[in-house]
Amino acid sequence: MPENNNTRHKSSVALVLVDVINHFEFPDGDKILKNALPIADRLTKLKRRCRRAGIPTIYVNDNFGQWRSDAKSLVKSCLESGCAGRPFVENLRPDDEDYFVLKPMHSAFFQTPLEILLKYLGATSLILTGLATNSCIVCTAHDAKMRNFSLFVPSDCSAARTRREHGQAIEHIREMTSASVVVSSSLRVSELRSESRRRRSKT
Amino acid sequence: MPENNNTRHKSSVALVLVDVINHFEFPDGDKILKNALPIADRLTKLKRRCRRAGIPTIYVNDNFGQWRSDAKSLVKSCLESGCAGRPFVENLRPDDEDYFVLKPMHSAFFQTPLEILLKYLGATSLILTGLATNSCIVCTAHDAKMRNFSLFVPSDCSAARTRREHGQAIEHIREMTSASVVVSSSLRVSELRSESRRRRSKT
Amino acid sequence: MPENNNTRHKSSVALVLVDVINHFEFPDGDKILKNALPIADRLTKLKRRCRRAGIPTIYVNDNFGQWRSDAKSLVKSCLESGCAGRPFVENLRPDDEDYFVLKPMHSAFFQTPLEILLKYLGATSLILTGLATNSCIVCTAHDAKMRNFSLFVPSDCSAARTRREHGQAIEHIREMTSASVVVSSSLRVSELRSESRRRRSKT
Amino acid sequence: MPENNNTRHKSSVALVLVDVINHFEFPDGDKILKNALPIADRLTKLKRRCRRAGIPTIYVNDNFGQWRSDAKSLVKSCLESGCAGRPFVENLRPDDEDYFVLKPMHSAFFQTPLEILLKYLGATSLILTGLATNSCIVCTAHDAKMRNFSLFVPSDCSAARTRREHGQAIEHIREMTSASVVVSSSLRVSELRSESRRRRSKT
Repeated sequence: MPENNNTRHKSSVALVLVDVINHFEFPDGDKILKNALPIADRLTKLKRRCRRAGIPTIYVNDNFGQWRSDAKSLVKSCLESGCAGRPFVENLRPDDEDYFVLKPMHSAFFQTPLEILLKYLGATSLILTGLATNSCIVCTAHDAKMRNFSLFVPSDCSAARTRREHGQAIEHIREMTSASVVVSSSLRVSELRSESRRRRSKT
Repeated sequence: MPENNNTRHKSSVALVLVDVINHFEFPDGDKILKNALPIADRLTKLKRRCRRAGIPTIYVNDNFGQWRSDAKSLVKSCLESGCAGRPFVENLRPDDEDYFVLKPMHSAFFQTPLEILLKYLGATSLILTGLATNSCIVCTAHDAKMRNFSLFVPSDCSAARTRREHGQAIEHIREMTSASVVVSSSLRVSELRSESRRRRSKT
Repeated sequence: MPENNNTRHKSSVALVLVDVINHFEFPDGDKILKNALPIADRLTKLKRRCRRAGIPTIYVNDNFGQWRSDAKSLVKSCLESGCAGRPFVENLRPDDEDYFVLKPMHSAFFQTPLEILLKYLGATSLILTGLATNSCIVCTAHDAKMRNFSLFVPSDCSAARTRREHGQAIEHIREMTSASVVVSSSLRVSELRSESRRRRSKT
Repeated sequence: MPENNNTRHKSSVALVLVDVINHFEFPDGDKILKNALPIADRLTKLKRRCRRAGIPTIYVNDNFGQWRSDAKSLVKSCLESGCAGRPFVENLRPDDEDYFVLKPMHSAFFQTPLEILLKYLGATSLILTGLATNSCIVCTAHDAKMRNFSLFVPSDCSAARTRREHGQAIEHIREMTSASVVVSSSLRVSELRSESRRRRSKT
């Protein structure tokens, strides 16, 4: 196996994008898409800022009933003309430096190698983003906390079927997982590494 | 996401191939390769017989430090000219009907969606094959037993660094996991479904 | 080891009580206790009705920093005079027929043998009750759904710091885990076994 | 819940005793008991030396079909007159400083809180002992390695049905889990903490 050409991303923080490679072709998918479209730009900018700060990006994505470990086909199918998700996905597609983990259920941790990848990267904090706030994001936040990860949850980088569901889920995450909830533009990504170390040392 | 074109493989038995997509470029890889080459033909035949009997094939494979969920690139890199593993891999490459699960560590179950895929298929028995007998196969056999799967282990469809290591590992698996150990040619794959049901109902 | 004297409780449904053996001596414990006291009677009645219907009761409880697998000491310490939790715990103490699983974190499934115990009992549905609605109950409900269990959540048998937190968590569970949410008195426990079978067969 | 009276055992190493609280009343239990009796004294001494060096002891034990989280009853039943395991168990019973984790299956890690307890203690290395070498000890060793723990396996502190099974299992563990295999008397427990740190920093 040829060695991974990418520099190994040692970082105490990782940006996690949940279910953003998405066709939105499921019940209520149209509602989520409507609320998701406005976050695409912010996610793109956040990812770019993380890249510059040396923070790796990990896509954790539903396999949509496929079991072929073929992320490229998932991405490609979401970019086909006619796919409802195309406007959302096109600027969010992963590039060669990004990591990609397939998940079979809601939580990004359940029966996936995410925890091992995070250990390999040295990450103890997550910037958690994606879809849907009150489903996979809530599940992932709880599972991250039970595994002792610190959480930063930019409230403008996830979405749900309704603004009310989104708001309640963000509030729930803030209360129950000790997440630091902020708007993405105020996340000082270059300072997060040291901050995450300070937060942990106080625990 | 376009629907999976393959017929969903409902089957009480699944054929599992561990780490057969392999470059063998690691310490003692040459020793394992030497013992692995003779099993390639038998695995190919066993897979063909399973296909005809309606038994799905699941590749569970090390990701070799890649975290891109890109099985096709793994396969491709093992087929490049100059790759030590090419003679072993070329007839064992997965086709569109096969499932493919990436594993981060030794056991095919540890931090992978294998268990969920098996539930989805309805499989309660595994035909366990691949590399290396005394490492990933032993780990996977123990994990399968703890999860209550029945095991069929064809002794001529796995290999290790030495024949002694292979033999002791097969003996260990037979003793400790209640596996049915046979040579592959005597596995009556078309009867396995009903047999696996009988074995379970007696438990 | 002398055989378990209790009859083995084969049942497709199990009653799960989360963190009801509780001293309530932690931040905001007094707020939860205030809302928990009114549910104690309903839980006692529900447990009695389940017992009569042959449905086993499983306590899944925080170990409160103890790692001695000593449930009896936990119960005893909550019944000591002066313990804030005593009025809540005294009618809810487990008896010899009940099962008792210790959990280290929020979810009743995370790093506990609950899933194996449920398989051993043959349970595919849970009646989920206990504390606190927006913490351990939400986590457990998500984990139950990811493991394919059906859920019945009596809305008057769990509690949180505020009625608003409780109500939002119940609403979240109803929406996101396909739980059947009812008041406990309307749960026809004697019919649940067959109902849970019907629900599953439609999936 | 009254605070744990024991000093919290922060230690980079933990002594793990698997299935030593045992009635040996199962198929081939008499064979294992015969080979286990000679290790009881060595385990007792090793435990005492660990205690003096500040290394905590964790019992991880089968629950023998009980699901009551009642370790004391398990110990008591093994000490009853007439119980085959009494001569083995009587000097190995846990005291108030020891930790006790119940396991439902073979591996000490599978569906148990052991990993969380080890994190809580700060332990990154295990001294792995107990029964039976080729069953629970092999499973636990593999699971420890996949979770990145360093292993010390004193070859004279575990046992199996036959000396051959024991020897092959020890050899397998040495080869496949990078365990340091030594006789217990040569384990310099007071130096293990620093050694385990050195071993990890080289990884």
